[in-house]
Amino acid sequence: MKAAVIMGSTSDLEKVEPAVKILKEHNVEVKVRCLSAHRAHKALAAFVDECNSDGTSVIITAAGMAAALPGVVASMTVIPVIGVPLSGSVLDGTDALYSIVQMPPGIPVATVAINGGKNAAHLALQILALSNPELRDTLWNERKEMEAAAEKANSEVISRFE
Amino acid sequence: MKAAVIMGSTSDLEKVEPAVKILKEHNVEVKVRCLSAHRAHKALAAFVDECNSDGTSVIITAAGMAAALPGVVASMTVIPVIGVPLSGSVLDGTDALYSIVQMPPGIPVATVAINGGKNAAHLALQILALSNPELRDTLWNERKEMEAAAEKANSEVISRFE
Amino acid sequence: MKAAVIMGSTSDLEKVEPAVKILKEHNVEVKVRCLSAHRAHKALAAFVDECNSDGTSVIITAAGMAAALPGVVASMTVIPVIGVPLSGSVLDGTDALYSIVQMPPGIPVATVAINGGKNAAHLALQILALSNPELRDTLWNERKEMEAAAEKANSEVISRFE
Amino acid sequence: MKAAVIMGSTSDLEKVEPAVKILKEHNVEVKVRCLSAHRAHKALAAFVDECNSDGTSVIITAAGMAAALPGVVASMTVIPVIGVPLSGSVLDGTDALYSIVQMPPGIPVATVAINGGKNAAHLALQILALSNPELRDTLWNERKEMEAAAEKANSEVISRFE
Amino acid sequence: MKAAVIMGSTSDLEKVEPAVKILKEHNVEVKVRCLSAHRAHKALAAFVDECNSDGTSVIITAAGMAAALPGVVASMTVIPVIGVPLSGSVLDGTDALYSIVQMPPGIPVATVAINGGKNAAHLALQILALSNPELRDTLWNERKEMEAAAEKANSEVISRFE
Amino acid sequence: MKAAVIMGSTSDLEKVEPAVKILKEHNVEVKVRCLSAHRAHKALAAFVDECNSDGTSVIITAAGMAAALPGVVASMTVIPVIGVPLSGSVLDGTDALYSIVQMPPGIPVATVAINGGKNAAHLALQILALSNPELRDTLWNERKEMEAAAEKANSEVISRFE
Amino acid sequence: MKAAVIMGSTSDLEKVEPAVKILKEHNVEVKVRCLSAHRAHKALAAFVDECNSDGTSVIITAAGMAAALPGVVASMTVIPVIGVPLSGSVLDGTDALYSIVQMPPGIPVATVAINGGKNAAHLALQILALSNPELRDTLWNERKEMEAAAEKANSEVISRFE
Amino acid sequence: MKAAVIMGSTSDLEKVEPAVKILKEHNVEVKVRCLSAHRAHKALAAFVDECNSDGTSVIITAAGMAAALPGVVASMTVIPVIGVPLSGSVLDGTDALYSIVQMPPGIPVATVAINGGKNAAHLALQILALSNPELRDTLWNERKEMEAAAEKANSEVISRFE
Repeated sequence: MKAAVIMGSTSDLEKVEPAVKILKEHNVEVKVRCLSAHRAHKALAAFVDECNSDGTSVIITAAGMAAALPGVVASMTVIPVIGVPLSGSVLDGTDALYSIVQMPPGIPVATVAINGGKNAAHLALQILALSNPELRDTLWNERKEMEAAAEKANSEVISRFE
Repeated sequence: MKAAVIMGSTSDLEKVEPAVKILKEHNVEVKVRCLSAHRAHKALAAFVDECNSDGTSVIITAAGMAAALPGVVASMTVIPVIGVPLSGSVLDGTDALYSIVQMPPGIPVATVAINGGKNAAHLALQILALSNPELRDTLWNERKEMEAAAEKANSEVISRFE
Repeated sequence: MKAAVIMGSTSDLEKVEPAVKILKEHNVEVKVRCLSAHRAHKALAAFVDECNSDGTSVIITAAGMAAALPGVVASMTVIPVIGVPLSGSVLDGTDALYSIVQMPPGIPVATVAINGGKNAAHLALQILALSNPELRDTLWNERKEMEAAAEKANSEVISRFE
Repeated sequence: MKAAVIMGSTSDLEKVEPAVKILKEHNVEVKVRCLSAHRAHKALAAFVDECNSDGTSVIITAAGMAAALPGVVASMTVIPVIGVPLSGSVLDGTDALYSIVQMPPGIPVATVAINGGKNAAHLALQILALSNPELRDTLWNERKEMEAAAEKANSEVISRFE
Repeated sequence: MKAAVIMGSTSDLEKVEPAVKILKEHNVEVKVRCLSAHRAHKALAAFVDECNSDGTSVIITAAGMAAALPGVVASMTVIPVIGVPLSGSVLDGTDALYSIVQMPPGIPVATVAINGGKNAAHLALQILALSNPELRDTLWNERKEMEAAAEKANSEVISRFE
Repeated sequence: MKAAVIMGSTSDLEKVEPAVKILKEHNVEVKVRCLSAHRAHKALAAFVDECNSDGTSVIITAAGMAAALPGVVASMTVIPVIGVPLSGSVLDGTDALYSIVQMPPGIPVATVAINGGKNAAHLALQILALSNPELRDTLWNERKEMEAAAEKANSEVISRFE
Repeated sequence: MKAAVIMGSTSDLEKVEPAVKILKEHNVEVKVRCLSAHRAHKALAAFVDECNSDGTSVIITAAGMAAALPGVVASMTVIPVIGVPLSGSVLDGTDALYSIVQMPPGIPVATVAINGGKNAAHLALQILALSNPELRDTLWNERKEMEAAAEKANSEVISRFE
Repeated sequence: MKAAVIMGSTSDLEKVEPAVKILKEHNVEVKVRCLSAHRAHKALAAFVDECNSDGTSVIITAAGMAAALPGVVASMTVIPVIGVPLSGSVLDGTDALYSIVQMPPGIPVATVAINGGKNAAHLALQILALSNPELRDTLWNERKEMEAAAEKANSEVISRFE
């Protein structure tokens, strides 16, 4: 299982790292790149071409402001592209959200929440799990653990207010 | 290749139909349902359970206003869930966009543009193509056709202004 | 007099506690739960069913981001459901406000201000007071106290500027 | 069972009428008034006082733009007040939504969707049903009918796409 | 020359004080009050009536959130009412701005910037100056001083960058 | 009693005319001009200078989009300036609202609702009435008529629903 | 004098044509292209390269929704790039505005109003006029004509209201 | 090569300084001024006239809130005017963005990102480079350096995650 993670700027590192961590913990081979759509256009195209031919199954992209990165990557591949709008400008990520989600027909970007790096990873895992029954089992198990954790949190809240 | 399409209300039919059409044109077996998260909760849960066990690989959900449908479906499955925010209220779909894209960690929804039914279908096809090389070839061919159509449009524009 | 308070996450505790406190101070029997619509769906349904049969008269729900909790609870009961949109994401609670207030016909959620836990409690008390004349008297007395406090604040402001 | 419905202007009539109709169909005695917080202040105060003493159990208020009506009514009573933000200005009802939902602590308004007159009526019925078991049964039956209608809509959608 | 300044809550004091100070520096007799439209309705009506008969020429009102105060005051007088939307909620004062500026025909509120207490005072002075030539001269002199200060700031900027 | 009304473009005529009509009906001598802050800067300055010396007591300004007109006029006079944000662009007047209301300290613009020409006229009349007791009486009478009309509307609504 | 105009889609033709017309009327040699950043990436890069070497002095770009075109062009050249956000989606062009104006340091796009094709042309002419004194004279003359037209409009408004 | 930089207030200094620095580093002769459109109108007009006749090729303007400065300057010249919307008010610069970008036809302002002083300088350099081949070479070299820096950042990110 191979995935790629592309951020637009090193200032996005902190918000992207949790996604990489989650992918690695699930034994996904991850290529991480810092390739701005505006500043490193050729290197970006070369990297997406590489993904197109080396068996990469999903590409996570994260960018802020006039976040062209996810859409530009999506235009260069038919691999599913996930977009994470990042806050950071004074517009708190609404600029990036609109720039990423409002793609024209034919070139989709799977957009997750503003700063939603973790969900980008989970969505990538769900896509990878479609052809990996073991990963799928893991995801179901994690759901059960999540449910168990939720139950525990609920119990704590119940006792706190009794 | 199996996909499901769930709309929240029959008033969403017109916006959902193009997605179904695109999927069928690519030989995807599509189950279409009208199951509101708020009005048909049990039937919704039953249908998602069915998807969980019958080999469905992707679920497209479309809803407007306080669009809980995509998130609720996502909470019941580890299959990738695509969310289409629909306009229709006076808020022009920003209510649905926020309700769909701002999911908490662990339960992702792959959000596309407001009224972006076509892109939901294209994203679904990209996901299905990961384990279907023939579909992947088709998608690449469509990209080339899209590029050719773009070239033709460009030529027409050039001659129009000469 | 019985009420229920459901939060979507333990991180909402601080914003929910004042509501619980106000209810208890008015001798309302309060069941407090932490049950996410997305992470603890079955436990949530079980709890709402319990409310439906144990004489609970009002359910306060508090959630942030794609706040599906209030609407999902409302779809499972005909008890009045109060929704408190919580800030916490970069969108400052407008995401939660839209997700909670824009419900479709037939499934209302009584929405209060962003982070308006106190008003959720006061609205719950007003509903409970309809069949509890003593509580109604208390609420009227509190209004008079509020008015007296306002008068005192006014006097202080007057003297400050004289 | 008594309820009151107050609109701020006769231009709101069309949006308020469905609420009145729903209440009457459930045998609620409804007093309907057109009393602007800004243009008919004394008559408004007199009417709310009347509600305070004649057994009215819930007051629905509907207003657009700088919609002060719901909050002003809420400040004159401890009866639950439901607020319906109306579109009509160029701001599409976001002005009214903010003016109604963002109430200070101690004076709640139960806000429903923009132009959500029907849900205001349903919320009122849920409040009235707390002390009227027959109405409560009716509301549960309507939920079942809603579910049946949803099922039928689903069946139609299924056959349409088969 | 008489003016009144009404704030909705003592938490607004800090934002209102500069307005009072500016008025007093220009020898305006200022009555300052803390009278919420929602919590001190009768005292508010009594105070506005007092303004209506004691020669008050302008009323500054400042409020946040669902800021009904300016409009309610405007509905009780034909004296010009100035409204200052205050930030303080998570919506940063846009809620108050919409609640104050979007008044219906016949009941105007002269709205200034969010947290624009100083400009409320300057607008009040301009209104008072219409029948006070001395004050008008003062305002023109202040404009000249403002221009002189601007010139000085410009000179400093010029030398800084040379 | 003299007032001036300045619009930024002849396309604003329809929205400005009701204001002129109201002023004239109250025997205010009105000078109406079409003087864009961006296209007719010198003529605008000349006209405001004229207002500064001919006894004009209030200037209504109406403009859309990047509505600089009200602020520029305000910077050239100490006469009260009223600003009417006009819709017309795709931003529905929020651009004009922000451009007009968010003035810096010392240069106030009395902003009314988007497209609120009528309220601009009413605010102007209130300002003029401060030194014209007869006009003040008229304004109070109109309030009573407004109240009477409101009462009549209320009666009609009452009978409609009985 | 050479300029280029690039639109993202033929559906933008109507909004782009006025810009082309204005440029041609001023004897600017204009190359017009329809080249989407997402659908015709290579042809776009080739065209911008051509502009880089054939003496083109300014590039106007127009796009709607997730409008990546202006930024992508700007990243491929050091010729000034003008961006025109287009409405057309349900978000009325705010999506395109944010996508175009919020560019990262080093890659500027000169953004004009939503649907502001005419101003894009005027800005292009101002840039071209810097090295073309004759065009500069023309622009000054047009300003005088604009002023004359404004004066005439003002005269008509004056007589209309006298 | 001559450029001018105008800020509306000395409080904008910190955000404007990087633009001045960039221009000076490229041997542009820069005149920096602090001239508010609202407080220093005549000095502003005089300065723009000076720019019109002394060979200034581009004017950068920076302002916050009801940012009239860029548009007013644009109305006084046919030199390209660049506008930088500044945050600083509670509206985070959206007020300034709308006030600057939404200019009427014939009077363009080249708007850059909120607080985008650096990009204003880069856009100015691109305009100046049109008649200065040496500067144009410098800009291309900087792009190559930017690309090299991007490559280096990418390498660091790659090694960090290996």
